[in-house]
Amino acid sequence: MTGHVVALCGGVGGAKLAQGLSMALPPEELSLIVNTGDDFRHLGLHISPDLDSVVYALAGLSDPVRGWGRRDETWTFMEALKGLGGESWFQLGDGDLAIHVERTWRLTHGATLSEATAHLCRALGIATRVLPMSDDPVRTRVLTAEGWLDFQEYFVHRQCRPAVQGFAFAGAETARAQPDALAALERRDLRAIVICPSNPFVSVEPILAVPGIRAAIQQSQAPVVAVTPIIGGKAIKGPAAKMMAELRLDVSGAAVARRYAGIIDGFVVDHTDPLPESWADIQFFSAATLMNTSDDRLQLAHAVLQTADRLGANLT
Amino acid sequence: MTGHVVALCGGVGGAKLAQGLSMALPPEELSLIVNTGDDFRHLGLHISPDLDSVVYALAGLSDPVRGWGRRDETWTFMEALKGLGGESWFQLGDGDLAIHVERTWRLTHGATLSEATAHLCRALGIATRVLPMSDDPVRTRVLTAEGWLDFQEYFVHRQCRPAVQGFAFAGAETARAQPDALAALERRDLRAIVICPSNPFVSVEPILAVPGIRAAIQQSQAPVVAVTPIIGGKAIKGPAAKMMAELRLDVSGAAVARRYAGIIDGFVVDHTDPLPESWADIQFFSAATLMNTSDDRLQLAHAVLQTADRLGANLT
Repeated sequence: MTGHVVALCGGVGGAKLAQGLSMALPPEELSLIVNTGDDFRHLGLHISPDLDSVVYALAGLSDPVRGWGRRDETWTFMEALKGLGGESWFQLGDGDLAIHVERTWRLTHGATLSEATAHLCRALGIATRVLPMSDDPVRTRVLTAEGWLDFQEYFVHRQCRPAVQGFAFAGAETARAQPDALAALERRDLRAIVICPSNPFVSVEPILAVPGIRAAIQQSQAPVVAVTPIIGGKAIKGPAAKMMAELRLDVSGAAVARRYAGIIDGFVVDHTDPLPESWADIQFFSAATLMNTSDDRLQLAHAVLQTADRLGANLT
Repeated sequence: MTGHVVALCGGVGGAKLAQGLSMALPPEELSLIVNTGDDFRHLGLHISPDLDSVVYALAGLSDPVRGWGRRDETWTFMEALKGLGGESWFQLGDGDLAIHVERTWRLTHGATLSEATAHLCRALGIATRVLPMSDDPVRTRVLTAEGWLDFQEYFVHRQCRPAVQGFAFAGAETARAQPDALAALERRDLRAIVICPSNPFVSVEPILAVPGIRAAIQQSQAPVVAVTPIIGGKAIKGPAAKMMAELRLDVSGAAVARRYAGIIDGFVVDHTDPLPESWADIQFFSAATLMNTSDDRLQLAHAVLQTADRLGANLT
C-alpha cells in the first residue's frame, strides 16, 4: 500500500510510535501533527515539550533511560540557576536548552512555530514533516479538586498529584489549525490516520479541539486507527491511568477507544490484554504495543499500518 | 582611613582589582560602577559581560584558567546549539547561561538592570554594591577600517582583528547615570575613586560618557587613582595595547594616564616599568599590578588605597 499517513501524537509515548512510523515510511509519505497544548513560557523561553520529544525521537537524540529530554545531557545550567535563586521546578538540561533558546529567538523574530520547527528538523536531518497542531497558542488547563491549574503547573510542579475533574484548552476556539496539518488530513491519497499511544485527555484531545481537525478526520475516507496508551490497566508513562480513575472511567484501552468514538475505525490494544469486542463501529486489534527498543517501534508501526490497510480494504 | 570608595571597572582585569577591593574593605565602604557598553542581546538573551565578570569574581566563581566565564563550566548547550544550526560565534557556557536567562527574564518582567544585578548579588552572597553605570542602554561601537562595528561583533566575532580608528557610545547622550552610582560619587565621605586596570577606550570611557559621571568625578574632593592596564608595553589581557598602537598612541601606562587627564590625581604603573614624571597634575606611583592570585589582588587593592590616602592627605 502507498499513500500518505498522518499521525497525531503527544510527547514521549506518542513520539516512540512516530519514530517507528518514520522508520517504516519514506519521509514524503508521513506527516506528524503534534500537540502544543503543553507549550508554555518558562524563564522567558518558549517550551514545546511534545514537539521536542518528537524531534528528539526522530533525530535519535532521546534519552533512553530518563524517558524524556536529550541523551548525553548535563545539568550545569540548573545547578547554576539554583545558585542564583532562579525557578528550578522545571528541569532544563544544558543540551535541551539549545532547542528552547533557538526556538524562542526565532519566534521573537517573527517565525511561526511551524517555521521554527521546520528549521530545527532541517538542522537535525529530519525529513519527515513535523507539524504543530496550530501556530496559535492553545493552552491545556486542568480542573482539579484545587481549582484550575495550568498544565505544567499540574504536570511538573505538582507532579500530577491533584485529582483531575476535567480539562480545557484555552485558545482552542480561535486557534487556526496548522495549514499543512489540515491539508494533510484532507489529502485524497490518504492511506491512514494514526492516533499514537498518547494521553487521550491532554495530548490527543487538544489536537482534536483545534477547529477543523476533528471534522477533517471524520470526513476523511482513510481508516483511522488509534493505539492504546494503557497496558494491563496501567499507563506506560505519565498520568493517563490516574486521570482515568479520577474521572471514574474504566482504566483500559477499551475506555480510551470510547473517548475516540465517532473518530476512529480501529483501535489497537496490547497483545497481553484481552481483545475487546467491536463497539460502536470500532474494531479492536491486538499488537505488541510496548516500545522499549527501536525495533519495537518499527514493528508496532508496521502492525498499525497493516491494521489500517485491512480496515481500508473493508471501508472502500 | 575610613570613608567610602568607588571603583569604576570593566570586565576581567578590572574585576580582579574590584575583587581585591572587596576583600580589603567592608561591603558598606565600597561601590563598584561597572561598564555596560559591552552589553548586547544574543539569541534573545541580555548579556552583560562586564557585570558578569565582576559578579563572578566577587562570588569566587571566575574561571581561573580561561580568564572569563564561570569555573567548572560545561559546554553541552553550545554543542547542541551548533547541531541546531544556531549562532555559535559567542561562547555561552552551560552555567553562565543561568545568569543570562535569569537576568533576561527579570528585565522582561520590568526589573531594571540594577535590580536584576542586585538580585543576582544577593543570591550569590555578594554584599558589596555592584552597580551598572546606567539602567539605560549604552552600546559601544568601534570605528574600524571596515566601518562601524558593534562591540561584540568587533571583540568576539572578529576577534579584534580590524584596526580601530575611534569609538562611539550609542545612547550615552540620553542615558541616565545609575542613581546609586551617581550618589556614591557625590558622597561627602568619599575616601577615593579608583579606576581599575580596564581598557580605557571600551571599558572606562563608556562609563565616563554617561552624563553626570565625569562631572561628579571632577567635582569630587576625593583623590582619583587609576591603575595601569599596560605592563611592559603589553595589555595583560584584551586589545588595549593593540588599540593604542592603532590609534598611534604610545603603548604605556603614561599614555593611558593622559587619556584620564582632568579626571585623575594619581596613576599607578607597574613596578617593572619606569616611573613616569608627574604630568599635568597627575602623580605617578609604582606597585605590583599583575594579579594572578587572590593575594595579588588584595595587595594591589591595599597599595591603591594607600596611594589614594597619600594623595588625599596632600589634596586637603
